[in-house]
Amino acid sequence: MSNLIYGHHPVVEAIQAGQPVEKVLFQQGLRGELEKEIRHLTKEHDIPLQVVPKEKLNKMVRGNHQGVVAWLTLVEFQTLEAVLPAILERGEIPLFLLLDSITDVRNFGAICRSAECAGVHAVVVPQSGSAPANEDAMKASAGALARIRLCRVRSMYSTVEWLQQNDVQVVATALTDKARPLYAAELTGATAILLGPEGEGLAPKLIRMSDQVAKIPQATDFDSYNVSVAAGIVLYEVQRQRLGNVNL
Amino acid sequence: MSNLIYGHHPVVEAIQAGQPVEKVLFQQGLRGELEKEIRHLTKEHDIPLQVVPKEKLNKMVRGNHQGVVAWLTLVEFQTLEAVLPAILERGEIPLFLLLDSITDVRNFGAICRSAECAGVHAVVVPQSGSAPANEDAMKASAGALARIRLCRVRSMYSTVEWLQQNDVQVVATALTDKARPLYAAELTGATAILLGPEGEGLAPKLIRMSDQVAKIPQATDFDSYNVSVAAGIVLYEVQRQRLGNVNL
Repeated sequence: MSNLIYGHHPVVEAIQAGQPVEKVLFQQGLRGELEKEIRHLTKEHDIPLQVVPKEKLNKMVRGNHQGVVAWLTLVEFQTLEAVLPAILERGEIPLFLLLDSITDVRNFGAICRSAECAGVHAVVVPQSGSAPANEDAMKASAGALARIRLCRVRSMYSTVEWLQQNDVQVVATALTDKARPLYAAELTGATAILLGPEGEGLAPKLIRMSDQVAKIPQATDFDSYNVSVAAGIVLYEVQRQRLGNVNL
Repeated sequence: MSNLIYGHHPVVEAIQAGQPVEKVLFQQGLRGELEKEIRHLTKEHDIPLQVVPKEKLNKMVRGNHQGVVAWLTLVEFQTLEAVLPAILERGEIPLFLLLDSITDVRNFGAICRSAECAGVHAVVVPQSGSAPANEDAMKASAGALARIRLCRVRSMYSTVEWLQQNDVQVVATALTDKARPLYAAELTGATAILLGPEGEGLAPKLIRMSDQVAKIPQATDFDSYNVSVAAGIVLYEVQRQRLGNVNL
């Protein structure tokens, strides 16, 4: 595993140097200065911290891990606060994709591929409960993961609020009764599309917070579209509307 | 392997009984009555026949295969000639998906899932050079493969001609310069969508034979949409147009 580092100093130095750390695994029951330092650093740098049994770390690492292991991501995370002003300066209409609880690596990669095709400015994922930006995701993305801007946020709720305060509407995709057909949603302005997992769908609170709720029409009651297909469809509809198609 | 049968009589009986045979593997160099019978039967029933070294059959089968092995599919194939009149009798507008050289099992399954969601009447695949309708495809389709009508045809060219003679327009999807944007294609009438593999795309002759050529708009020059995402987008656009959306 080339993107795994371990031991007290290597992990601390990686975090302090701003290396793109996916998450830190910390040994259950370990107390003292190391614990304090790791807890403080991960919190400060918005890095997910997971406490795991010593056996798990032993399985992952052959050397002396000293109770702490870190995964490095293949991509560097950016912040929406830095990305949004740059888009506006270029005179472009912001288009973001917010992925809540998309844990399947293939779907995550496939979505990033479509996002790059559709000119999405940034894909936003929550700090915990997301698919890792690893080599499998890179493969599924056909390399798009290395090109797209990826933002990792502490809370999707705060992100939705922040976007709305900055004049970016949030459009949730859900199969609820109140949702309007996707083609009837207004997607020409600054927009962030909110996508959730296939089975349970988006958290109700996220749907309630959204400016619009859209659903992809289905001709049958069979299951639903795969989430990466759904993402592609929504991004197509955004492009269709923005390219100014009015005749048919 | 539960969907594999072998030996002279079992294979011949399966074909004669009309069981859904994916393809027949026949031992290289084997001559005589068995060869003649198998060649005749597979031709008569439109079943792909592949000649392979004896070693390959030995690896697949522990028992005495007698030089002939057959794969059964999980689904039964239907014919367009039987499917089309039934659609028209029900007063529905035909919608077909023609998959040329889609060999990736996951993509094939994912496309079938979207097709079932979008109410596609039949997915059409050529006899050779297609992904098998096996358990992996079934899994990728989330079970849709068991519900969707699947037609296997000897030649995509003849199928395109047959559809056109029966008043079903064929719309090719391709990234050629002449292609019009998908949303500008006319998809409200009886339609068969023609999709090809991601890399090389559709055979030029198939594109020339088609009534319309459509492309999915891309905002960047990055690669292209995954073929299963592309299928979902085209099917969405068909639904959008057929649901009568004219304002936006």
